[in-house]
Amino acid sequence: MSYDELKNLLEQDPFLKHVGIKVRSIKKGECEVEAELRQELTRFGGMMNGGAIATLADAAGGCAVLSHYMDRNEVTVDLEITYMRPITEGPAVAHGKVLKAGKSLAYVIVEVKDGKGDLAAFCKGTYFLFEGVKP
Amino acid sequence: MSYDELKNLLEQDPFLKHVGIKVRSIKKGECEVEAELRQELTRFGGMMNGGAIATLADAAGGCAVLSHYMDRNEVTVDLEITYMRPITEGPAVAHGKVLKAGKSLAYVIVEVKDGKGDLAAFCKGTYFLFEGVKP
Amino acid sequence: MSYDELKNLLEQDPFLKHVGIKVRSIKKGECEVEAELRQELTRFGGMMNGGAIATLADAAGGCAVLSHYMDRNEVTVDLEITYMRPITEGPAVAHGKVLKAGKSLAYVIVEVKDGKGDLAAFCKGTYFLFEGVKP
Amino acid sequence: MSYDELKNLLEQDPFLKHVGIKVRSIKKGECEVEAELRQELTRFGGMMNGGAIATLADAAGGCAVLSHYMDRNEVTVDLEITYMRPITEGPAVAHGKVLKAGKSLAYVIVEVKDGKGDLAAFCKGTYFLFEGVKP
Repeated sequence: MSYDELKNLLEQDPFLKHVGIKVRSIKKGECEVEAELRQELTRFGGMMNGGAIATLADAAGGCAVLSHYMDRNEVTVDLEITYMRPITEGPAVAHGKVLKAGKSLAYVIVEVKDGKGDLAAFCKGTYFLFEGVKP
Repeated sequence: MSYDELKNLLEQDPFLKHVGIKVRSIKKGECEVEAELRQELTRFGGMMNGGAIATLADAAGGCAVLSHYMDRNEVTVDLEITYMRPITEGPAVAHGKVLKAGKSLAYVIVEVKDGKGDLAAFCKGTYFLFEGVKP
Repeated sequence: MSYDELKNLLEQDPFLKHVGIKVRSIKKGECEVEAELRQELTRFGGMMNGGAIATLADAAGGCAVLSHYMDRNEVTVDLEITYMRPITEGPAVAHGKVLKAGKSLAYVIVEVKDGKGDLAAFCKGTYFLFEGVKP
Repeated sequence: MSYDELKNLLEQDPFLKHVGIKVRSIKKGECEVEAELRQELTRFGGMMNGGAIATLADAAGGCAVLSHYMDRNEVTVDLEITYMRPITEGPAVAHGKVLKAGKSLAYVIVEVKDGKGDLAAFCKGTYFLFEGVKP
């Protein structure tokens, strides 16, 4: 699977498509994804909903893991997200990075920035790997 | 605000509506929400996407917090979710419960079960409270 | 290995011994441990140090996992602890319980109560299992 | 309070002293602490106990927060630690860094490295601030 195929695969994932997540860039162990702040991603007050932010962060984290191995599939084990600043201006951009890629577990961190480039959320994730060419 | 008004408020929240989250029940410090496993909430393999599960869990947690105070607004500070079992059958049901409600912080736990009633995810959340009659 | 042997093993663990952790009870998938609030476990202000509480919680969680399998060894993958109330009166008691015990991962929750029986901290942990009769 | 006074304060904290934690360096919003891998900090197998690592990480995180404000006191709200590699060679070194310092909450990340400089654990923490010149 090439990075282009990985990008397509992610953007065709049903829920990620429903949220409107696009892949900005992929390199080995790193992935950047984004979402425009459309009205349907907001919560009361007009800021981005925390669940939408978690979805974006998990997409970046999972993609970073997939891009490291390229021939494994993964499921999220743990996702821990801290919300530091409301996102009131898009696009929201999440940058995921593999901290360690083991035999059965991979560990990532994800930074989520708002449209002004300010750090809005920080996320730590643990992913379990299994066989399967396609995610 | 009554529990019915809180239920309506949550179900009209733009992102929760986009995901299709409904409120099953509310009592002081507890809230149960659900989502049908529609195709657009899935990931590859047909199971529910982890971001959709996090959204459901955060909705249950936030609602539990709001139902405890009824006259405060909240934002999520930290959300930590562990995925234990893929959700392949809906509806997914999240039950949030306040563990402690302080002056500025409230702490909740959330259990997410699949359509068979099996525990699929467990979540812990910390919420920051501020003034504002409506969430 | 019997529960008594497991209890001895834990109480002889060098760091747990250094902190003064005792096992109160063990049953399959559950374990309760305690620590007196000796002066060397405190932080400024006289309350129990957060690291000491995390140690107690991890001991309860790890013990619960070991008691479920009895013939596997474990290492902690993720430990997430929320501190809700300062512990100013001992003994601090941590009750760990397995939520799900899988083939390679086990998931636990731990409640930590102070000497008055009030919930002081709540913890969620993920443990990785491997072969080895003794922990 | 000067950085030297902060260093002394931390090293005189009863539990941190019991664990043998020393402050390596402090600058605004960052702090590095260490602990030798003495036998009493180990678990079965000779590696550093996870509770000792959490204590080290929390010390680095709390110190980073204190060094940012210098006139506030803090308590840990949430501490989430991921263990990626066993620490079998000391000293263990934890580097804490403030990601965002708000009015009532501060957010930190902490990297813990083993004696060879390899990343062994990664930690995310949320701290609540309150008045009080001394921690």
